[in-house]
Amino acid sequence: MRVIKIVFPFIFLLLLSCSQSAEVKKEADKKIQRKAWVIRVKPDKLEEYKKLHSNVWPGVLKKLKEVNIQNYSIYYRDGLLFSYLEYTGNDFDADMKKMAADSLTQEWWKLTDPCQEPVETAGEGVWWADMEEVFHMD
Amino acid sequence: MRVIKIVFPFIFLLLLSCSQSAEVKKEADKKIQRKAWVIRVKPDKLEEYKKLHSNVWPGVLKKLKEVNIQNYSIYYRDGLLFSYLEYTGNDFDADMKKMAADSLTQEWWKLTDPCQEPVETAGEGVWWADMEEVFHMD
Repeated sequence: MRVIKIVFPFIFLLLLSCSQSAEVKKEADKKIQRKAWVIRVKPDKLEEYKKLHSNVWPGVLKKLKEVNIQNYSIYYRDGLLFSYLEYTGNDFDADMKKMAADSLTQEWWKLTDPCQEPVETAGEGVWWADMEEVFHMD
Repeated sequence: MRVIKIVFPFIFLLLLSCSQSAEVKKEADKKIQRKAWVIRVKPDKLEEYKKLHSNVWPGVLKKLKEVNIQNYSIYYRDGLLFSYLEYTGNDFDADMKKMAADSLTQEWWKLTDPCQEPVETAGEGVWWADMEEVFHMD
């Protein structure tokens, strides 16, 4: 009985430690879909676009996290904006609809949309145009 | 003495488990520098470039890992290649020199370079042209 009393806390700690370790691993193994798009930025709106993005509204960032977006970057060169993000959810289209229905995000887009215009080859009604992944290494 | 014999394996396992957990965390906290570049792909070489990148030589991938590159993707649209990668080392320029000195990587570049040409605004001697990060969310 005495032995059990002594050993029990160690077993408990061991199990707790293992479960935390498993959680970290589970997080790392989460299925990630990478996405990339391109769009034009109007030359006279570049500075405004950069200024807006140096301080994105917290509510917009919160919504992006809510719809399972992470590691999201936007790059600029030669009149083009390139965006790269990682999606960790199970239904990208549904999550994008959820984001588009968010009133704060809509207000944000009222500021950013006038800075942009789709590339010439974007299809009818397409804003950010998909890019094709030709290589990936984890 | 008997108690020590019983408890010891648990202490050992607990310490082992904790050290592994700390390693996973350390890995996750590693400082990451994001990098992005753009280059043209010659229209008549696009298919060749894509074919090469669907099956990159293992030695080239190994060298990329060795020089602290991870999560490396290349995207294509409208004659442009966009690359995004994460650098986890402490001296990017030194690591790039190390990669450039690798004979297998040089052989690989002999195949990929003829597929590409720098964008018009790339400086003298610049191959992949830097893009500017205008937004990032972890």
